[in-house]
Amino acid sequence: MTSDKLYENIREKRSFLCVGLDPDISRFPDSVLETDDPVYEFNKKIVDATSEFAVAYKPNIAFYEALGSGGWWSLEKTVEYIRKKHPGIFLIADAKRGDIGNTSKRYAKAWFEDYGFDAITIAPYMGHDSVMPFLEYKDKWTVLLAVTSNRGSADFQMTIEKETGLYLFEKVLRQASRWGHSDNLMFVAGATQPEMLGRVRAIVPEHFLLVPGIGAQGGDLHSVAEHGLNDRCGLLVNSSRAIIHADESDSFDYVAGQKASMIRDEMAGILKDRNLI
Amino acid sequence: MTSDKLYENIREKRSFLCVGLDPDISRFPDSVLETDDPVYEFNKKIVDATSEFAVAYKPNIAFYEALGSGGWWSLEKTVEYIRKKHPGIFLIADAKRGDIGNTSKRYAKAWFEDYGFDAITIAPYMGHDSVMPFLEYKDKWTVLLAVTSNRGSADFQMTIEKETGLYLFEKVLRQASRWGHSDNLMFVAGATQPEMLGRVRAIVPEHFLLVPGIGAQGGDLHSVAEHGLNDRCGLLVNSSRAIIHADESDSFDYVAGQKASMIRDEMAGILKDRNLI
Repeated sequence: MTSDKLYENIREKRSFLCVGLDPDISRFPDSVLETDDPVYEFNKKIVDATSEFAVAYKPNIAFYEALGSGGWWSLEKTVEYIRKKHPGIFLIADAKRGDIGNTSKRYAKAWFEDYGFDAITIAPYMGHDSVMPFLEYKDKWTVLLAVTSNRGSADFQMTIEKETGLYLFEKVLRQASRWGHSDNLMFVAGATQPEMLGRVRAIVPEHFLLVPGIGAQGGDLHSVAEHGLNDRCGLLVNSSRAIIHADESDSFDYVAGQKASMIRDEMAGILKDRNLI
Repeated sequence: MTSDKLYENIREKRSFLCVGLDPDISRFPDSVLETDDPVYEFNKKIVDATSEFAVAYKPNIAFYEALGSGGWWSLEKTVEYIRKKHPGIFLIADAKRGDIGNTSKRYAKAWFEDYGFDAITIAPYMGHDSVMPFLEYKDKWTVLLAVTSNRGSADFQMTIEKETGLYLFEKVLRQASRWGHSDNLMFVAGATQPEMLGRVRAIVPEHFLLVPGIGAQGGDLHSVAEHGLNDRCGLLVNSSRAIIHADESDSFDYVAGQKASMIRDEMAGILKDRNLI
């Protein structure tokens, strides 16, 4: 998907919501647990109930990997279902991969070609040759970690470089924005640190940012919009638990739809205020 | 496995070799390709031929992930086979994972409890709460990336911190060695940069180091030993392609055994020179 198409979808749906498909089986109602593939059934219902309000879905791969080979099967089926029933959705594999070039090539092939995701999250620690193989795919996206939403983000991401006075995450943004461009590269910038989000935006004014941390992790949407929006929206804001596990009864999908609809309404207001729709 | 037991195995086998189980299907002979589960068949033969000379095996998870749900099935069976036929082997999941605490917990459970690995490689970028869930498991190991063996390692790992004058990887070593100890934490230090290996060893004198980059990537065993050995060996040196794909005919396992045996002989000489055996 191109950034033009992504922006078009955002305007059409009046939403820059990404729903995190991080299914926690212990929170499934019995009616789902009793099916042959509970994770797939759960995802299907969540997607059907929320796709009107979301432009993107982001399965965190850990949740599938933790289930062994069966989990991968559920993931494959989920992707297939979204592609078939909800075309136009932007699909992000939240995998946080990154390895030597030879290995990253395999990951890129797996996630982009075989699974058919539009984007994958990548950790920057291993440098350019761990990232480049992902950038070689046309109309596919690398989403590089810059500032994450967790407490540990302060440990290394905020290291100040002697030579430049930049934070490490700023160095990551500067270097990586030379490896790719705003049509194949996004960055992760956590909602829990809005002032850092402003610093990210200052270095990469045109790139899309994937913003986790709204909802259960405590980030605030208006603050994210204030520091992160650009003239083509430039944001995908993710919410997982606060939508998909808002309710644990048989009405979980209905409630998820309501939650997503409320966030969409807030987003529509923000986009309107900025004259983006 | 404890470090005492690991050291005992090293002395017994006169080897600190870790064999990378990174199977490249395009290099399999027909006799393997024709079986029901070629990756599993290949791994079985490689392990049977090399286990006399190796103390550890390290599947790079990318190679399995790239094969979809079938790849995970092959991995599960490989682990089961090693556990049953070759007890005492140290098993490292080369997964380079790392996510927010909630997610890292899932990864830790998956890799340590469900798959039954002894160790997993972790990327440090997200900081302490992405690492701690792995350190909570008794007799299991977190292998944190410090200096990697690829070119891109210079991009961020060599960032010099303003406050301390340390390289970023040195900061990672210092901080992380406070999160864990030499019986649950190892570090990755690439063989391609032996002088950096010396710097690693200076900060963590007692920890085991996992050293990739021997063989196909160009690292030299004697240079690694010179900079990395400690008084309980303290090294696991990995070789993948140079062993498992040394030959692509039906004799691939025999040749892999020969290659591993040659490295073991070199290692035995090094251990003897240092009076460790």
